[in-house]
Amino acid sequence: MDIIVLRPDATDEALRHLLKKLESKGLSAHVSKGTERTIVGVIGDTSRVTEEEEDAIRVMTGVENVMRILKPYKLASREFKAEGTLIDVKGRVIGDKKIQVIAGPCAIENKTLIMNIAEKVKDAGASFIRGGAFKPRTSPYSFQGLGEEGLQYLADARERTGLPVVTELMDPRDIEIMVKYADIIQIGARNMQNFMMLEELGKMQKPILLKRGLSATIEETLSAAEYVLKGGNREVILCERGIRTFETYTRNTLDLAAVAALKMLTHLPVIADPSHATGRRDLIVPMARAAITAGADGVMVEVHPDPEHARCDGPQSLTPTGFSELMDGLVPLVALEGKHLGVG
Amino acid sequence: MDIIVLRPDATDEALRHLLKKLESKGLSAHVSKGTERTIVGVIGDTSRVTEEEEDAIRVMTGVENVMRILKPYKLASREFKAEGTLIDVKGRVIGDKKIQVIAGPCAIENKTLIMNIAEKVKDAGASFIRGGAFKPRTSPYSFQGLGEEGLQYLADARERTGLPVVTELMDPRDIEIMVKYADIIQIGARNMQNFMMLEELGKMQKPILLKRGLSATIEETLSAAEYVLKGGNREVILCERGIRTFETYTRNTLDLAAVAALKMLTHLPVIADPSHATGRRDLIVPMARAAITAGADGVMVEVHPDPEHARCDGPQSLTPTGFSELMDGLVPLVALEGKHLGVG
Amino acid sequence: MDIIVLRPDATDEALRHLLKKLESKGLSAHVSKGTERTIVGVIGDTSRVTEEEEDAIRVMTGVENVMRILKPYKLASREFKAEGTLIDVKGRVIGDKKIQVIAGPCAIENKTLIMNIAEKVKDAGASFIRGGAFKPRTSPYSFQGLGEEGLQYLADARERTGLPVVTELMDPRDIEIMVKYADIIQIGARNMQNFMMLEELGKMQKPILLKRGLSATIEETLSAAEYVLKGGNREVILCERGIRTFETYTRNTLDLAAVAALKMLTHLPVIADPSHATGRRDLIVPMARAAITAGADGVMVEVHPDPEHARCDGPQSLTPTGFSELMDGLVPLVALEGKHLGVG
Amino acid sequence: MDIIVLRPDATDEALRHLLKKLESKGLSAHVSKGTERTIVGVIGDTSRVTEEEEDAIRVMTGVENVMRILKPYKLASREFKAEGTLIDVKGRVIGDKKIQVIAGPCAIENKTLIMNIAEKVKDAGASFIRGGAFKPRTSPYSFQGLGEEGLQYLADARERTGLPVVTELMDPRDIEIMVKYADIIQIGARNMQNFMMLEELGKMQKPILLKRGLSATIEETLSAAEYVLKGGNREVILCERGIRTFETYTRNTLDLAAVAALKMLTHLPVIADPSHATGRRDLIVPMARAAITAGADGVMVEVHPDPEHARCDGPQSLTPTGFSELMDGLVPLVALEGKHLGVG
Repeated sequence: MDIIVLRPDATDEALRHLLKKLESKGLSAHVSKGTERTIVGVIGDTSRVTEEEEDAIRVMTGVENVMRILKPYKLASREFKAEGTLIDVKGRVIGDKKIQVIAGPCAIENKTLIMNIAEKVKDAGASFIRGGAFKPRTSPYSFQGLGEEGLQYLADARERTGLPVVTELMDPRDIEIMVKYADIIQIGARNMQNFMMLEELGKMQKPILLKRGLSATIEETLSAAEYVLKGGNREVILCERGIRTFETYTRNTLDLAAVAALKMLTHLPVIADPSHATGRRDLIVPMARAAITAGADGVMVEVHPDPEHARCDGPQSLTPTGFSELMDGLVPLVALEGKHLGVG
Repeated sequence: MDIIVLRPDATDEALRHLLKKLESKGLSAHVSKGTERTIVGVIGDTSRVTEEEEDAIRVMTGVENVMRILKPYKLASREFKAEGTLIDVKGRVIGDKKIQVIAGPCAIENKTLIMNIAEKVKDAGASFIRGGAFKPRTSPYSFQGLGEEGLQYLADARERTGLPVVTELMDPRDIEIMVKYADIIQIGARNMQNFMMLEELGKMQKPILLKRGLSATIEETLSAAEYVLKGGNREVILCERGIRTFETYTRNTLDLAAVAALKMLTHLPVIADPSHATGRRDLIVPMARAAITAGADGVMVEVHPDPEHARCDGPQSLTPTGFSELMDGLVPLVALEGKHLGVG
Repeated sequence: MDIIVLRPDATDEALRHLLKKLESKGLSAHVSKGTERTIVGVIGDTSRVTEEEEDAIRVMTGVENVMRILKPYKLASREFKAEGTLIDVKGRVIGDKKIQVIAGPCAIENKTLIMNIAEKVKDAGASFIRGGAFKPRTSPYSFQGLGEEGLQYLADARERTGLPVVTELMDPRDIEIMVKYADIIQIGARNMQNFMMLEELGKMQKPILLKRGLSATIEETLSAAEYVLKGGNREVILCERGIRTFETYTRNTLDLAAVAALKMLTHLPVIADPSHATGRRDLIVPMARAAITAGADGVMVEVHPDPEHARCDGPQSLTPTGFSELMDGLVPLVALEGKHLGVG
Repeated sequence: MDIIVLRPDATDEALRHLLKKLESKGLSAHVSKGTERTIVGVIGDTSRVTEEEEDAIRVMTGVENVMRILKPYKLASREFKAEGTLIDVKGRVIGDKKIQVIAGPCAIENKTLIMNIAEKVKDAGASFIRGGAFKPRTSPYSFQGLGEEGLQYLADARERTGLPVVTELMDPRDIEIMVKYADIIQIGARNMQNFMMLEELGKMQKPILLKRGLSATIEETLSAAEYVLKGGNREVILCERGIRTFETYTRNTLDLAAVAALKMLTHLPVIADPSHATGRRDLIVPMARAAITAGADGVMVEVHPDPEHARCDGPQSLTPTGFSELMDGLVPLVALEGKHLGVG
C-alpha cells in the first residue's frame, strides 16, 4: 500500500483526513498535485499496513485507487534471499544445479503395484516415488484411495528402493500421519489457499511441495508459500501444474513462463507437473523437457505399468517404458543446461 | 461414459478387445461403422461406470475419445427431482417463490458490532445474518478472525434478533462446533472441491450453502453438491459468486447465466453473492437486482456500518443505509417476478 | 503514465537520468524516497505521453514498474462528459430513459424471411431490425451470407415496417455500402480491435454499435470506442456480448457487471446481446431481463420463425412467439426501472 | 456432426422426424436405445453437414445434444497429410528438421534502424527479418506505423542482407501491396478469425504466418488455417503467441502444450513468439528455448538496438547483444533435438 490516487473531485478536507489517518499509522506522505489527479506517496514501513487497513483507505471519501508497490510476500522473495534455496531430502538435493524427478502412480492401489513402480522408476533414474493415499475425485462415485494403508505401502516401497516419498495431504487432521510417513508433503492445487493448513505446516520440519492453484496467479502462489515460510518452515518447493483457461484440448494450460518468472522472483525451487497440466500422455515428454529448458528444478510425472487398469489418471500416466525414455532423453538436456540429474 | 469413438486406424482386434471389456462390466454395445470413424454406443447402466473405468477405456489401443452422455451428478438434477427443493430454516423458506436475503459483515469483529448490524439488517428486511469467525486471508499478515468467540457473538445476535445465522466452515475439525452454532453452514469457493469435508457434511442434518469455486464449471458445482446429497443431507443451497477471468475491473466475473442455467439443471435453490463477485460497493445493488431477475432465490450481501474501519472486505460492503435502499428496491422487483421477499 | 517505481537497487544516476528524460517531455516530477522503494510521481499533462514513451521508461535502468493513473480513454469517459449520450436513430432514442430492442435473424437468408421477421418483431415491439449480410463462420464450409443482395432485402424490410436497420460491417471495403444501407453499423466482437476500420468509422456520420471483444477488458472496450470518437463520430453504442472463459455450458460468459460498470465509466449507451453471449435459447429471456435490470439501455436478440431451418445460430434464436413473450415481460420491468420501452 | 443424443422424454415421433431429416441429407443412422438415453450415430459423409445443419438438428424437438466426432478442419490435419509440410522461402526451409528464427523490431521506424537491425540479426544467425509497417495500437494516441514507406525500407533491408521479410497484413485492401513486398505475410492474433481476409489469402501464392488469436482454441486456430488452405494456398505457418488468461504478470500466457499438440494434429509448421506472449524481455530467452524443446519449428522474437527509444514494444525486445546470446544458446539445443538451425 504505497500510492493513493485521489478522485478528480476530492476535496482538501478529504486529503487532510487521509493524511491524518496515515499519520496515525506512523506513516508520512508525499503529496503530488498533478493536473488531473492528486497522488499521495506513502513513506514508512508500509509492510506493516495490513489488507484491512489498505481496504479502509480504499473506501475513504475522495480516494479513487490504492496501488500496492510492494509485493504481498517477503520471505519468499529473491530480494529477501538472493541465493537459491537448496532442499536436501535424504541426500537428494532440490534446487540450484540439481534436477530431480518425482515419479509414481496417481493413487497407491495396492502394495505389489507401488513396489513394482518404485523399482522401475528408480531403475530409470527417478529420485522420488510419489503416490496418493487419499484421492477424492470430482465425482463422488469414484475410487477414493486406501488411506493410511496406502501410506504404509509407500513406506515399504521407500524401504525397498531407498527412494524418499512424496504424497499429498488433503485434510489437516492427517498432518501428523503425513509427517510420519512422507519425506515431502504435497499440497494439491485445490488446497493451495487452505491457509489454516499452510500455517500448521509452517510449524513442521518437513519439506512442502506446494502446487499452484488452478486459478491462482504467480503472486498468489508466492503468498501461499509465505504462509508456510513465516511459521519457520523454510523448505517449500513450488510446482506449476497448469491453470484453468478456455482451452479444452489439454486439461489445463501449463504456464511455463510462470516457471521462468518464479525462478527470478523467488529463491525457492520450482518444479513442473506435466501430467496434471496436460492430462494427455502424449504431451508429458515434450512438456517435461520444455519445463527443464524453461528453468524448472525438476518434474513430477505419473507412471503406471498398466494405464488401462489404473484406478485414476490412466490417460495422463506414462508406462515404465515411456518413463525410461523420458529419463534417457533428459540426461543430455540437463547436461546442456549445466545441471545434474538425480543423486550425486 | 456412453459413446466411444475409435481412431481411424483402429484394428478389428482392438474393437473386439473393447467390446469384451464392456461385456465384462455388464454393458452391451451398438457398433456404428461410419465412413471415417467407428463409434461404439454403450448400452446398460453406465452410471455404474466410474471415472477410473472411463479413463481405462480412454487409454485402450484404438480408442480416440470417450464421450460422456450422462451428467456426472444425479441426485442434484432436475431429472431426478422435478419440483424445486424448499429449505426451511426456522421459518425462512429458501426456494420456490421465496426470495431470501442474507446480510452481514465479512468478519465478526466484536460483539457490539455484530449485534448492531444484525438489528439493522433485520429492520431493513434481511432474513439471515452472516459473519465469518475464521478469516484466513490471501496475505498471512492480515486479520484472521475471532474463532469460536466470534460464533458465540453471532449466536447472541441471533438470540437478540431472531435471525438465523450463516457462517463459513473452513476446516473439517470445526464441523461439530459449526453444527452447534450455525443455522446454515457455508462452504466457501476455495473449499468447493474439498470433497472429504463435503462427504462429512452429507451426514449432518444442517443446510449447506455451497459457493461455486473460482474456476469451477456449472457441472463441477453440481458434482460438488452431489457429494453432500449422496450422504443423505438433501439441503444444499448453491451460490454463484463470480468466476476468475481476465477481466480485472471487477474482482471476479459474476456469471448470472449460471444462475439461470442452474435453476433449469437442478432442483436445489440458487442464490448469488454480488459483494464477493464484484468486489466493488457500487456494483452490489445492480448485480443483486440482476441476480433476482435472472432467477436467483436470494442474494447474500456484505453490510458494515463503517466500511472505512471494517477488518475485511470494506470496499465491497454496503452501509446499513445502502442496504436499506437495496431492500426497498427489491420489494417491487420481487413482486414483479411473482415471488415473496422474506418471511411469511 | 503517472507513477514510476524504482528498483530497490536503482542508483542516483539512474534517477537523474529518468528525471532528465521526464523534463525533456515537459513533465516535472515529485520524488518520494520510501524505506523500500523510491517512487516518482509525474506531474504535467501526462495524457500526451504515448504508449511508446511509457514503454521507453519501463525499460530504463533502475525502473521497476510504471503505473498509469489515468485511463487510456478520455472522450468516452463520464469525466469528460457527465450526462449520458442520447443517440436518435429515426426517432428511436437510445440512452437515458429509453430502452430499445433490436431483433432479427443472425443472417438475412432471403427476402421473404426478413420481411416476415421484420413485421413480426415490429408487432411485438422491437425498435430495430437486425440481420447479417456477410456471415463468415468458424468453419469455411458453412453458409457465408448473401452480401449486398441481403442488405437490399434489409432495406426493403425497413421500408415496409419503418424499423431502422442494424447490420454488421466485416470488411473496410464495405464501409461505403454500409453507410448507404445501414442505420446503425455493427462492429462485431472479432473486429473490436480492428483499429483501422474504427478510425474510418470515426469520420462517418453514422451510429456505431461496437461489440466487446471475446477477450477484451472493459477498459479496452472503451479504448476501442475512443478510436471512433476521436475521429468526430460521437455516436457509439457499446454492446456486452459475453467474454471467453473456462465455462463451456454457455457459449460465452455474459458479464452483466460490465454493463453496470460501463454505465458508470462512460456516457455512451450500453446494450447487451444475450443470444450470442449464451448461445442457448432457454437463457435469452432471463438474461435479457437481467441486462435491463443491470442498467442496459437495450438488448439485441436473435429471432427466427423456424430455428430448425435457420442458416445460422438457430440454437440461440427465439421464435417470434418467444420474442413476443419476452417483450410483454419487459414492459413492466422497464417501467419499474423508471424507463420507457421503444418509440415515444 | 456424428452423434445425436435424445432427451429422456423424446417421443418416437421425434425420433422418426430426426431420422427422416438425416435421410434427406443422404445420411443413415444407427439408433442405440440405452437405459437412460437414446443415441443416434450418423453414418455417411458427415463432413458435408454444415454448421447450420448441425445447428438445425440441435434445435429439433427431442434432441438434447449433438456431438461432433470429426474435427472442423480437414486439409490442415495430419490425417489428411501425414508428412510435415515444408515451406521453402528463398532457400530458408521451415518445417521438418529445420529451425528458423525470425527477428526484428515491432515497428519499422526509419530506414537506418531497420537496415541496422537486419544486419545485426543476420550476423547473429536469424533467417528472416520482421518489422511492422502498420501498427494500430490499443490506444488511438500512439504511433501507428509508416505504411508503404516502411515496407520499402524493409525491402531495402532484404536487398542489403538477403534475409527474406515477414510483415503483418492488417487490412484486406493492402493484400496486393503485401504480396509485392513480403516474403511471408503475417496475420496477427486480432485477425485470426478475419475469415474474408483469410479466404483471399487462400488464393495468393505467398506463405502465411497465422498467429493464434488471444481467445482462440487450438481447434479454432486450425479451422482458421483451413480457410487459407481450402483456397489453394498450402503454405501456412502457425504461430503460438500466448492466450489471454487471468494471469497478469505476463502479458499473455504462452501455451507451449499447444505447440506440441499442434505438431501432432497438423502437418503445418508451428513456431512461437515469446516476445508478444510474455511482454517481458527477461522471459524471451527461456521461453524461446522452451518452445524449441516443445517441438516448435522456429521462433519469432523482437529485437531493437535501443529499447528505451523503441516506438513500440520496447519492454519485450531483446537488444542485438541479447539476441546473439539467444542464438548462440540455441545452436546446441537445436542440435540436441536432431535439427538444424537456419539455412543449409
